[in-house]
Amino acid sequence: MKRVAIVGAGCSKFGKREDASMQELAFEAVKKALDDAEVTTADLDATFVGNANQFLTNQAQPGALVTDYVGMNPKPSYTVVDACSSGSGALRAAWASICSGLHDTALVCGVEKMTEISTAKMTEALGRAGDTRWEVLPTGIPNPGAYALLACVHMHEFGMTDRQLASVAVKAHHYGMMNPLAHFQKKITIEDALKSRMISYPLRLYDCSLVSDGSAAVILASEEKAKEMTDTPVFVDGLGAATDTVALHSRTSFTGLKCAELAAKQAYKMANVGPNDINVACVHDCFTISEIIAYESLGFCERGQGGKFVEEGQSYIGGKIPTNVDGGLKSKGHPLGATGVAMAVEITKQLRGECGQRQVPGAEIGLSHNLGMHGTHAYVHIYRR
Amino acid sequence: MKRVAIVGAGCSKFGKREDASMQELAFEAVKKALDDAEVTTADLDATFVGNANQFLTNQAQPGALVTDYVGMNPKPSYTVVDACSSGSGALRAAWASICSGLHDTALVCGVEKMTEISTAKMTEALGRAGDTRWEVLPTGIPNPGAYALLACVHMHEFGMTDRQLASVAVKAHHYGMMNPLAHFQKKITIEDALKSRMISYPLRLYDCSLVSDGSAAVILASEEKAKEMTDTPVFVDGLGAATDTVALHSRTSFTGLKCAELAAKQAYKMANVGPNDINVACVHDCFTISEIIAYESLGFCERGQGGKFVEEGQSYIGGKIPTNVDGGLKSKGHPLGATGVAMAVEITKQLRGECGQRQVPGAEIGLSHNLGMHGTHAYVHIYRR
Repeated sequence: MKRVAIVGAGCSKFGKREDASMQELAFEAVKKALDDAEVTTADLDATFVGNANQFLTNQAQPGALVTDYVGMNPKPSYTVVDACSSGSGALRAAWASICSGLHDTALVCGVEKMTEISTAKMTEALGRAGDTRWEVLPTGIPNPGAYALLACVHMHEFGMTDRQLASVAVKAHHYGMMNPLAHFQKKITIEDALKSRMISYPLRLYDCSLVSDGSAAVILASEEKAKEMTDTPVFVDGLGAATDTVALHSRTSFTGLKCAELAAKQAYKMANVGPNDINVACVHDCFTISEIIAYESLGFCERGQGGKFVEEGQSYIGGKIPTNVDGGLKSKGHPLGATGVAMAVEITKQLRGECGQRQVPGAEIGLSHNLGMHGTHAYVHIYRR
Repeated sequence: MKRVAIVGAGCSKFGKREDASMQELAFEAVKKALDDAEVTTADLDATFVGNANQFLTNQAQPGALVTDYVGMNPKPSYTVVDACSSGSGALRAAWASICSGLHDTALVCGVEKMTEISTAKMTEALGRAGDTRWEVLPTGIPNPGAYALLACVHMHEFGMTDRQLASVAVKAHHYGMMNPLAHFQKKITIEDALKSRMISYPLRLYDCSLVSDGSAAVILASEEKAKEMTDTPVFVDGLGAATDTVALHSRTSFTGLKCAELAAKQAYKMANVGPNDINVACVHDCFTISEIIAYESLGFCERGQGGKFVEEGQSYIGGKIPTNVDGGLKSKGHPLGATGVAMAVEITKQLRGECGQRQVPGAEIGLSHNLGMHGTHAYVHIYRR
């Protein structure tokens, strides 16, 4: 199999971006990625857009608007939709297109403008990615409810505690303070998290990621082309992807997320590495419980030990596997379609040693873990400098 | 570059399918494709769903519902969104994934359930794929208006006539009568078409394709795998894709659709054939004018001669290049995400000689041409038995 590398990467400022339309947000990241790779759109062969939810902007072809606005017409372009993992899906699609020989280079842009509509409409829009017939609408199990169920099971089965959940939030905010692009830059304590208002037991306000506008972009190139373009290619050497049922009631286990475990296994095998080889990771902490489960899905620790892993500081810089040192979805923000691509941006910058205060010293191998909805989709990518 | 083949194909009945949900519709086609390839979902590596418009079913993750329902969990799956060309985008994505070595086999399913919501809501939903800020809402240029503009330019520049537009409709209905899966099975005359009510000058009711529910599925396999699976592989040997501006007012020419011309050029080059080698074609006749422009984009005739081409019978069986002998979007129906995949199904069956009354004798090389919106996206695929 051929190798494909990231040769340029950039992220917009995440936040409530009243100053920018979806297209302008996309361009903000694309421009940074182009400048980073020292190329123009004329040098790129195709566009792959990650965008999750048409209801948020009332646009049925958001990817076409982005492709048009950033100046990638008339090159091929399509949009990948996979709820919160749309960006990772787009990266996977671009990777395959280059590896197949269809293209030498590609632009991957993930973007979501979430705050144009009212909070009520936004909550409804997000719920539409779930099992609307039996779960989301009649019983009130959109994303927070689903992850709350998973948290309850973890508490019951493994003794995971609310302090351990809070530890995830504290770490996220600790590192978010070091990321100028992060949405929510505020230091918090365990006590702040434990005192915040209940959203869906046992998840409190500080257990939830942010509703953000944002975009991220990477430029991919074939190995041959990458070596012409840069001295610091970051290769995407492992890709894993798996799916699970949309409805929670169709699943047989709630102690983990099967699709993430499968995706991790595929990615490790393809990259010929194991969890112990990973120097830095970005994982899908849409809720604090999902980061705890991610440690377990990825084999960073044993099943049931994720809470202890974060409480002991193993996911801080200096610990076993520094995780979400960009602030994660929790502090950096979670603009759905952008999230997976933003993870690729962070890992690229980490492997190139460009992360300043939050740099993981000497990182050579990185991993991203991106979930769609409550584990309907999972993508794991492994990167090597 | 490796070769990828279609080894199974199936289409649902198109129409107002009150009897089936989106998932059930998808399964109808998937089951036929599985049976056709004599495999089960266990034999397939991944799913690629084409679905255009989340507003039509109020689902933000329609592809996940389909993947789940047809039994393709936990294999990788994503959804490609490209308005009316979503199905062709999904096929392209699957092709690249196999060619890259990520998968040996893949299921491609295009589906759209369009009639669950009111006609007014549906019209609004479709318009949301255009330039909503300047064109669709304020000036009333959703799809019919856009294609009406193109038709006016064709009349003005090349003397194309309303009888020539009507000829496309008459041919579509002629062949639709021979396709048991077609939505609208009714013979019409030139006079019927010319007497039908005006929708957007010069396009009348019979110039417009149908709002249909439907699905289509193909199973792709690597050349090696295909040869183990079937004696009648149909290879996808040429792929072209291009984009254009979303807004019509950003374009510099209205005598054709630039992205379709570019996509055709790429596909011919890749397959190492020209228009004269094509034995059978499915083109995007969302409106009669778009079929006339398609003949020209694809080089079936000179620019401006598309009207004459159909009037002379060159796109009938026995003519130069039999086109849309399945009834086309006009008579078979146009369930957005399904359309591109349904074209692949028809060409596959034609190249295998299985089309009965509407069979093009001895067809060896086929072509599909699928547009998104008014030429925002175009895909051209070339197939060889």
